[in-house]
Amino acid sequence: MVKINENYLKLPGSYLFSEVARRISAYTGAHPEAKIIKLSIGDVTRPLVPAVTQAMHRAVDEMGTAEGFHGYGPEQGYPFLREAIARFDYAERGVDIQPEEIFVSDGAKSDCGNIGDIFGTDNRVAVCDPVYPVYVDTNAMAGRAGEYSQQQGRWDRLLYIPCVAENGFYPAPPAERAELIYLCFPNNPTGAVATREQLKAWVDYANANGSVILFDSAYEAFITRPDIPHSIFEIEGARTCAIEFRSFSKTAGFTGTRCGYTVVPMELERGGARLNSLWNRRQTTKFNGVPYVVQRGAAAVYTPEGRAQIMENIGYYRRNAQVIREGLAGTGLECFGGVDAPYIWLRTPEGMGSWEFFDWVLDRANVATTPGAGFGPSGEGYVRLTAFGGAEDTRQAVERIRTALQGG
Amino acid sequence: MVKINENYLKLPGSYLFSEVARRISAYTGAHPEAKIIKLSIGDVTRPLVPAVTQAMHRAVDEMGTAEGFHGYGPEQGYPFLREAIARFDYAERGVDIQPEEIFVSDGAKSDCGNIGDIFGTDNRVAVCDPVYPVYVDTNAMAGRAGEYSQQQGRWDRLLYIPCVAENGFYPAPPAERAELIYLCFPNNPTGAVATREQLKAWVDYANANGSVILFDSAYEAFITRPDIPHSIFEIEGARTCAIEFRSFSKTAGFTGTRCGYTVVPMELERGGARLNSLWNRRQTTKFNGVPYVVQRGAAAVYTPEGRAQIMENIGYYRRNAQVIREGLAGTGLECFGGVDAPYIWLRTPEGMGSWEFFDWVLDRANVATTPGAGFGPSGEGYVRLTAFGGAEDTRQAVERIRTALQGG
Repeated sequence: MVKINENYLKLPGSYLFSEVARRISAYTGAHPEAKIIKLSIGDVTRPLVPAVTQAMHRAVDEMGTAEGFHGYGPEQGYPFLREAIARFDYAERGVDIQPEEIFVSDGAKSDCGNIGDIFGTDNRVAVCDPVYPVYVDTNAMAGRAGEYSQQQGRWDRLLYIPCVAENGFYPAPPAERAELIYLCFPNNPTGAVATREQLKAWVDYANANGSVILFDSAYEAFITRPDIPHSIFEIEGARTCAIEFRSFSKTAGFTGTRCGYTVVPMELERGGARLNSLWNRRQTTKFNGVPYVVQRGAAAVYTPEGRAQIMENIGYYRRNAQVIREGLAGTGLECFGGVDAPYIWLRTPEGMGSWEFFDWVLDRANVATTPGAGFGPSGEGYVRLTAFGGAEDTRQAVERIRTALQGG
Repeated sequence: MVKINENYLKLPGSYLFSEVARRISAYTGAHPEAKIIKLSIGDVTRPLVPAVTQAMHRAVDEMGTAEGFHGYGPEQGYPFLREAIARFDYAERGVDIQPEEIFVSDGAKSDCGNIGDIFGTDNRVAVCDPVYPVYVDTNAMAGRAGEYSQQQGRWDRLLYIPCVAENGFYPAPPAERAELIYLCFPNNPTGAVATREQLKAWVDYANANGSVILFDSAYEAFITRPDIPHSIFEIEGARTCAIEFRSFSKTAGFTGTRCGYTVVPMELERGGARLNSLWNRRQTTKFNGVPYVVQRGAAAVYTPEGRAQIMENIGYYRRNAQVIREGLAGTGLECFGGVDAPYIWLRTPEGMGSWEFFDWVLDRANVATTPGAGFGPSGEGYVRLTAFGGAEDTRQAVERIRTALQGG
């Protein structure tokens, strides 16, 4: 009899965003007249910019001709895209990343999930708490998380590093040893950023312990302050201890177009093996590259027009973040993030659990949020709002929440 | 110190097609004047058909407007595509597959590799020999293959089922028990097909033993004989023991456009769990769907124009297969496959190893093949030719091989 992967049976309930979707759908089923504004899932709403759609049109035309047709491409991505990434995302910021260190993929979610393939199942994993659920769930699936306690909302083999208002949402390196460390800055869900010094502490910790930092910088495009690092590789020593995940999803509106990349420096070795070679083997064996048309679209993000156009969209979302922050400032609710990040992390009113507040806001303001508890036990007492909605929707949503809070 | 996945270190050499590419590149480096014709990798050469490119253009236009923009889609694929697949690939052949049983993905290679995630690492795995290397390598990476013997060219925990001329390239169910069974028909690399009765024997075996058949039917579009099944689900009893992988790569020239799908029937349960739910959990946690533009292109394959256009391309490749089969028939070399499949499996001349014959053909005829030994020990003594080249290239390649064989 086939044995299934028993770790799957330990996973609690459904994936956070499926549960959010289910509750919204149940609510609108019962209240068909309600016009729900979703500030919940981190999905963009601005269309693809003209530079990208033009490049995609050209690529579709190529694919329709014998001369321009592209079949299997390099699993790691086309040189034209890897070179553009190396130049514009790294060299321009003074960071030396070579194209062979860049693996183009269908998105950071896939890579953050699949990266575990190259590591043993007996590594101790550290995650921030609250945290993007994919880091936790994929490690649970691989057997690295141990057993789940419904009561505590925790896995017994994961090392949770609380990130709460009291420590400025910054995870300090722990006294205990952790081997795989997931860090995400600008942070999902708290909207916090890390300074150069804070990241340096982690790089030193990782190099001292032989750990590997899995650094998710999917939201780096939202950084405005010049002293905040965009990449872990801006930190000295990171090339021997870090892997970085990036995405075009939030930078260029690619959530439905699917492109991201992972950087594995050549110097990063563990157990006598170069992790770049292991990841290369994983990708060449279990992945067949990103659609040519999509890679052409992604490369267009780096043209002068493309860069100007995506910065306009990012500016649009930044203004939404400002509207949320400032709009809720007068309500008495504490608001974090939303400055160098598209996420606003809102403390729920005294005594209200985060799913309870989620339901309350959904019902009273017809606004969907994401309950902080869904991101981990230390997310209890918070909800996440995103700046990715339409400007008018965002303004209205804030207004409705204000009214509901005053009325309630 | 981080522990890597030690199974990766057991993998012999590089991925087969990388080694083929390396040898071709070394040869052309030494002989820059040589014009190599590649009948090696199974990559298509005909452009995307107009129905597909038109649909993709329309989708790109949508993505450039606020109203038509699509962000995150369902991880499992859009209903418009899942419904088209259920109707045209299954219902039309009298097979009842529901859209919820279909998971759209970025290709069969990814799915064949990732499907292992939902199974325990202690299952006994059976593969045909020769076999598509992805089945073997991904199981080796997961620790299911045991140890590799360089001398035997085998993993000690895999159950290899020889498929050679002597048994008509048909793998009979073994006396031993195997839990996960990879079958691929029409077969890569041998070009063999399986009859209804042959597949029924496997379905009965799997149901009797609680095994799961992982059925790869990426090449079903090449079947011409009406009595040859296109899907494992045409066989009674398959819904309780089989998962099927399909791809638009060879059907519609999507090797560089990336779309495929996996069918997991609702009745398929093991260890008290529904495999459909496990795969759904895997995909929602570690995958974020196929680009909207690509799914629109894939759906266009099922329009009347799309179907007519792709059948023209398939006819083109079928004629290539015929040219290869008939052209090599007079050379004294034994030729298999190529009737209901795009692959021709050629027995090497007496006493010649398959890498040796690969090098010989590359040098004397400037034609690239794929050495059978790369697909497993029983592939020794064969090379694979593919029908996916241009018609004129294919004709020339056959002519050159004939001349070389006569001259040598």
